[in-house]
Parts: sequence; C-alpha cells; structure tokens
Amino acid sequence: MPKPKILLQLDGDPQASVFDSVVAFDAGIDHLLRHSGVKSADVRNLVHGALFTRGLDELRRTAVFIGGGSVSEGEKLLAACVASFFGPFRVSVLLDANGANTTAAAAVLSAAAHLDLTQATALVLGGTGPVGQRVVRLLAGEGAAVRVGSRAADRAAEVCASVQKRVPNARLEPVGTPDAAQTAAALEGVSLVVAAGAAGVELLSADARRGSSALRVAVDLNAVPPLGLGGIEVTDRGKERDGVACYGALGVGSLKMKIHKAALRRLFKSNDQVLDAEEVFALGRELV
Amino acid sequence: MPKPKILLQLDGDPQASVFDSVVAFDAGIDHLLRHSGVKSADVRNLVHGALFTRGLDELRRTAVFIGGGSVSEGEKLLAACVASFFGPFRVSVLLDANGANTTAAAAVLSAAAHLDLTQATALVLGGTGPVGQRVVRLLAGEGAAVRVGSRAADRAAEVCASVQKRVPNARLEPVGTPDAAQTAAALEGVSLVVAAGAAGVELLSADARRGSSALRVAVDLNAVPPLGLGGIEVTDRGKERDGVACYGALGVGSLKMKIHKAALRRLFKSNDQVLDAEEVFALGRELV
Amino acid sequence: MPKPKILLQLDGDPQASVFDSVVAFDAGIDHLLRHSGVKSADVRNLVHGALFTRGLDELRRTAVFIGGGSVSEGEKLLAACVASFFGPFRVSVLLDANGANTTAAAAVLSAAAHLDLTQATALVLGGTGPVGQRVVRLLAGEGAAVRVGSRAADRAAEVCASVQKRVPNARLEPVGTPDAAQTAAALEGVSLVVAAGAAGVELLSADARRGSSALRVAVDLNAVPPLGLGGIEVTDRGKERDGVACYGALGVGSLKMKIHKAALRRLFKSNDQVLDAEEVFALGRELV
Repeated sequence: MPKPKILLQLDGDPQASVFDSVVAFDAGIDHLLRHSGVKSADVRNLVHGALFTRGLDELRRTAVFIGGGSVSEGEKLLAACVASFFGPFRVSVLLDANGANTTAAAAVLSAAAHLDLTQATALVLGGTGPVGQRVVRLLAGEGAAVRVGSRAADRAAEVCASVQKRVPNARLEPVGTPDAAQTAAALEGVSLVVAAGAAGVELLSADARRGSSALRVAVDLNAVPPLGLGGIEVTDRGKERDGVACYGALGVGSLKMKIHKAALRRLFKSNDQVLDAEEVFALGRELV
Repeated sequence: MPKPKILLQLDGDPQASVFDSVVAFDAGIDHLLRHSGVKSADVRNLVHGALFTRGLDELRRTAVFIGGGSVSEGEKLLAACVASFFGPFRVSVLLDANGANTTAAAAVLSAAAHLDLTQATALVLGGTGPVGQRVVRLLAGEGAAVRVGSRAADRAAEVCASVQKRVPNARLEPVGTPDAAQTAAALEGVSLVVAAGAAGVELLSADARRGSSALRVAVDLNAVPPLGLGGIEVTDRGKERDGVACYGALGVGSLKMKIHKAALRRLFKSNDQVLDAEEVFALGRELV
Repeated sequence: MPKPKILLQLDGDPQASVFDSVVAFDAGIDHLLRHSGVKSADVRNLVHGALFTRGLDELRRTAVFIGGGSVSEGEKLLAACVASFFGPFRVSVLLDANGANTTAAAAVLSAAAHLDLTQATALVLGGTGPVGQRVVRLLAGEGAAVRVGSRAADRAAEVCASVQKRVPNARLEPVGTPDAAQTAAALEGVSLVVAAGAAGVELLSADARRGSSALRVAVDLNAVPPLGLGGIEVTDRGKERDGVACYGALGVGSLKMKIHKAALRRLFKSNDQVLDAEEVFALGRELV
C-alpha cells in the first residue's frame, strides 16, 4: 500500500491559514502537518523531518507548502527549505504565500485568452507589490512589453532591475503613477492593464479606462471595494465593458483555485519540484 | 465524490482541547483544523478561509467548533464568527466552550425525564456561573419557575435581568444563598435543584436536601469531590435517594457526550446553523 | 466500526517534530493531535481529554507519544502523563524524545547480533548524555560489564549510581575520557564500543580503535561528520573494518525506524503500556 500523502504547511503567521489547509484537503492529500509562526531558522529541522522518515523512492509522498500573509517572508522560507535539501534527499515544494503565485498566474492566463502576449503592451498598476511583481515577471517572460506602475517611480525602477535579472529578455519600463494624469499617460498604447495594488484604493477611474483606445483587457485583483479599476465588478469574468474584456478578483478566482489544487497535486508526482511563479504559471497553462 | 468534512476548532486556550478533538473525530469528521490561543480579532480571517475555498453548495462540508475553557471568551469568538459571515457565505457553528452547552442541555433533559418542567419550581445553585446561566436559560425557556441562587444576591439579580431579555416569558427570582440557612429557605417548595457551582464546594448538605418535602429531582454537575450536593454520587443516574431522583456529573455525562456528537453531526447538514444553548437543547431532546 | 486510532503528540519544542508525525502516520494511525511547547503543567488536562472521551473498552484506540528535542524534558512529560492516570482510566504512552529510546535500542540490538552481551565488556563514550545513558542502561540490563565514559569522571560516576538504582545487578565502572591517552586506556579489554557523544566531536581515533585487540563491535550514533569514531562511515551496517563489525548512525537507522513504528503500533494493542527504554528494547528484540 502506498504511503499516505503528507503535506507540511509552513506559515509565518501566528495562525496558519485555514484557506490553504482546506484547499490542500480538497486537492486530495491525506494528512496535513500545520506549522504557524515559522521562521527561516525553523525550516531546516522541520524539512529534515520530511526527508529522513521515508525511503528515497517514497519521498514524493511528502511535500511542503509555504504560505502566510507575507510574500517576502514566504520567499525566505522557500530559500531555507531548498537550502536544507542535499543530494537526493529533497521533497517538492510550492510557494503560494498570500496566494500570490496562483493569483498572478490566473491573472496572466485570463489575459492570454484574449491577447497575444508577445504583441501586447501591458501596464501593471501596483506593480511593485508582491502580487504585482509576479504579474510583471510572468508577462515579461511571455514576451509582453511591461510598464511597471508605482506611485514612486524609483521603486518601480528597482523592481524593473530585479525582474530583468530573472528574465534577461524582459522589455520593462518603470512608470510613476502618483496621480490620475500620469496614470492616464502611462496607459497610452497599452492593450492590457492589471491592477495589483493595495485593497480599497482605486488606481484607474472608469473614465480613464474608457479613454484608452488601445485597451483590450483589464484585470483587477482586488476583492474589496472600491476596486482598483473603476467600473469593473468583482465578479467580472471576461465581461465586455466598452469593448474591453474585464476581470474582477472573483472572476479570476475560480481559475486561481484550479491552479492551486493542480499545483498541490503536482507536488506528489516527484520529489524534485520547486514551484514558484513561473512553474505555477506553466502548470496553469495546461489547465486552460 | 463529496468533499471531506472539515471542522475548524477555535480554542482560546494555549493548548487546544484534546477532549473536543477526540469527540469531533468520533462524530465522523474527516479532518480537523485546530487553532489554539484564538482571539476575537483572529476569527474573521480564519473563518473566511472556510468560506472562500468551496462552492456555496459545498459549504455545509465545512463547519466551526468553538471551545476553550472560558465560556465568556467563547461567546466572543462566536459573535466574531457570526459577524464574519455575509449573505450566503456562511458555515454552521457550534459553541461548547467548557462543555457548557452540552452539559446544561443534558442536565435539563435529565430532569425533564422525571418532571413536567412547566409545572416545576427549580433552584439553580451556582446559577451565575457559565454553566449555571445556561441551565437557568433552558429551564426558563421550558416554562419552569426558576430561582437563581448565588452567594451574592445582586449578582443573581443581574443574571435574572440578562436571562429575561433572552426569554421574555421567563419566571425568574434571584435568591442569595450565602449560607446553609438561606439556601434551605431558597429550597422551600422547589421540585428541582441543580448544582452548577465551582468544583469542590458543597452548596447543599444531604440533611438539607432530605428536609425538603417538595423535592423530586437533584442534579449535580461537579465531578470533583466534595460534590455540590451532599450525599449524591458522581455516578448517580436517576438513582432514587430518599424519594428524590439523583444525578451526578458522570451520570449526566453519557447523555452530554451523545448530545455533543449529535450537535457536531448536525453542523454538516446545512451551512446556516448557529448552535448555542437553546439549539443544542432542542437537538438533545430528539435523542431522549 | 472501531473508533479511529488517535495519537496525542506532546512535544516540548516550539515546533512539534515533523519526523515523529510522519512516522506516526506511516505506522498506521488515523489522526494525530499535535501539541508543541508542552510543559509538565499542561499534560494533565491534555491527557484527561484522551481519558474521558471514549469508553473503557475503547481507550486503547487513543495513545500518547512524547517527543521533543530534550530527553530530560520528555521524561518530565512522561512522569506527568503517568501521574494523570487513575484506576482503569489510562492510555498507553511511548517516550522517544530526541529518538533516544529507539536509537539506544537499535544500537544495542545491532551489537547483540555479533556478541554475547552477557560476556561482553562495553565502553560507552558520551555515556552521560541522554542517548548514552540509555545505551548504558540497556547494556547493563543485558548483563554486559559497562564502562561509562565521560570527559568528566565525576559525571560518569553520577550516571553509574543512577543506572545502578534502576538495574541492581548492573556491573558499571565510570571512566574519565578527557584525552586520547585515557580513552585508549579505557578501551583496554573492551569488546564493544559505542559513541553517543555530541555531534561533530571525534571521541576515538581510527588508530586507537585499530590498536585494540579485544574489540569486536563499534557503533557510532552521530550522523554529522566528523563522526565520534574515526574511520567509520555513517552508512556502515555491520561492515568489517580491521576485524571489527562497524555501524554508523544511518546503518543503525533502518532498525531504529522499524522499532519506532513497531512501538507506535504496540500502543494500540492495550491501554496500559508505558514504553520507555527497556520496553522499547524488548519490543525491538522481537523484530531482529
């Protein structure tokens, strides 16, 4: 009888995510080992407990999920997890802190249903936040020209430099979007706009959106009103508004959930996978 | 295949209750998400993780149990849980902090096997404590005249006022029971006495109990000797002593366990139930 | 249908051991209740939750595992667990903090495959540490003459006195092994050497080992290089080196894992077992 599928949930928050746990069970795992308040220094010992308990041929029946509200903390936990592997002793791991990887993948895949991304010019508002950066990475990796929008242009430039290192062929441009006028200017010639900013802040008005003739797709990732893109509904799922295919956070959500579950299932196929933004996106593409 | 039954256990204590967890598994749940040290401010995010992971038609496969040693803290967690629902996004929830609801229900149901509660006059000793208040609520709701006993008469009056708001038709009377003489006086004409005081304090002596000619049923909810009612054994289960049907804490316990499990199973029948004292009592009545 | 097999994992560390949890599931338990940061004062209430939820004839479907990195803390938790039982209300419990009991049992059983322990003279280097003390206890209980090695001779004498109380017939001798010369002297006439010291300290050089004509078996319990016994490999499993059967930590490890799982399974056979070093050893002997 095959060993039960065990998922180690590492979460930096004081209370481990219920969301991530329910999805894990719905993806078919047998047992969940939940850890809250996890710090980088804890990871090695926890992961070694997963490496040294089963034979090498059974290591793919144990996997690690890294969650928590902070993407930057999650990235540190992922680095500590990978650093604790040695030789053939490793298990597969998925990073989805704050849902950032599955959300970014679902947003870009939603857009790709309407656009040839290699020909697209995209503007990512809130492009320096944790989800925004991942949207930028994925769009750039798909060949789109990407404008990285931020209230602070220098912060946008830092993100461009960081993404360029990961995606050498990336075509990136930092744009300051501190006010409506500069945001409207940044939208010039853009066929895809994605809003990935903080909750409850409108980044682009409905009027400004309607004023753009090149725009084809608009994706808003904020579930709490007011949304980041004015005039879009949270449930929009490719709904045409003024000639633009619109997506709200819940509209993107069902694809995000499918990707999340598929990524969890994928973990148990082999013991050597590290699923971060690009890997989650590649996996999502198989689903659409 | 139906989604697995997941129970979210919210417990304010530093170590989540093992008792509540074992009962949950014995009631047939598939997976348990245990949270200790839960504060009201944590509840919204935890419960939202239960609301946003499954389709509306599957929400009844996820439920919340609120435990912990403090009933007043549990009531706050319940309020925070219900406040986090919106529209059709809700899951069923059972409050049984300190076992108070299932214990009070079992105590009142045990008495009802011997008495017509609508015709009964009851004295609840320790009636201002967390279990005692629930016994008062349930007896009053069943139509009994209830004397709420407390060492401090003003505290008893506060509880009467509080219960009257919940049960408008309640017939309540606060009685000070600081010593044996006043307790004996409070017992005058009483057909049911329930002791729900702190552990290890005798609230009514065996002699005083024998001196009451109207008494028909005596229920003690304290498992640690000395019991609250002198001359009763912790295992008594309707045992006749001097013409009075007597119950000890363990004698009430097996019905309490049945009610606890039935309430957990009930949670998964629909996603819109809030099971507090009255709902747990109604459910217990179906079992006896 | 029999009640599910529930294991209560009590762990004094801030993050409960993943290792112990995975082994528990691989040993066939149904549900695991994990508690981290457990102190002696917490144990009574946690264990009572296991005692009062199921009928007496079903208590063997619930058991306790005590782990954590500190063996001395684990021993305190075990004492508190046993003290919380009363009359027939008890559940079976396994202590394996830091893997000490299963490791010591596997080490002694590995040696016993090559030696008649009743005729052996053993030297336990690092004999005052948590694993070392258990190796001393088990060897003495099997009738071997045991030299308890420690850098501090007085600490070795304390351990000898402590073990003598548990094993009245024990033949023990404290030996100071602060340097190579005294360690070589302590090895004189020894047929079995076990190194159970701290990680990364060589306690006996390969040359010193080769210089001993009586030596038949050498067991090293340290998985991190440099090993405690020079010239031995961590994967050695009875490998002959210079006429000595050699074992490294991983070489002992597969037997240790078998013993760990067998001990967990044994817990669910009856509700009255307390599995510490000697009981785990006896159980291991049935496996080899």
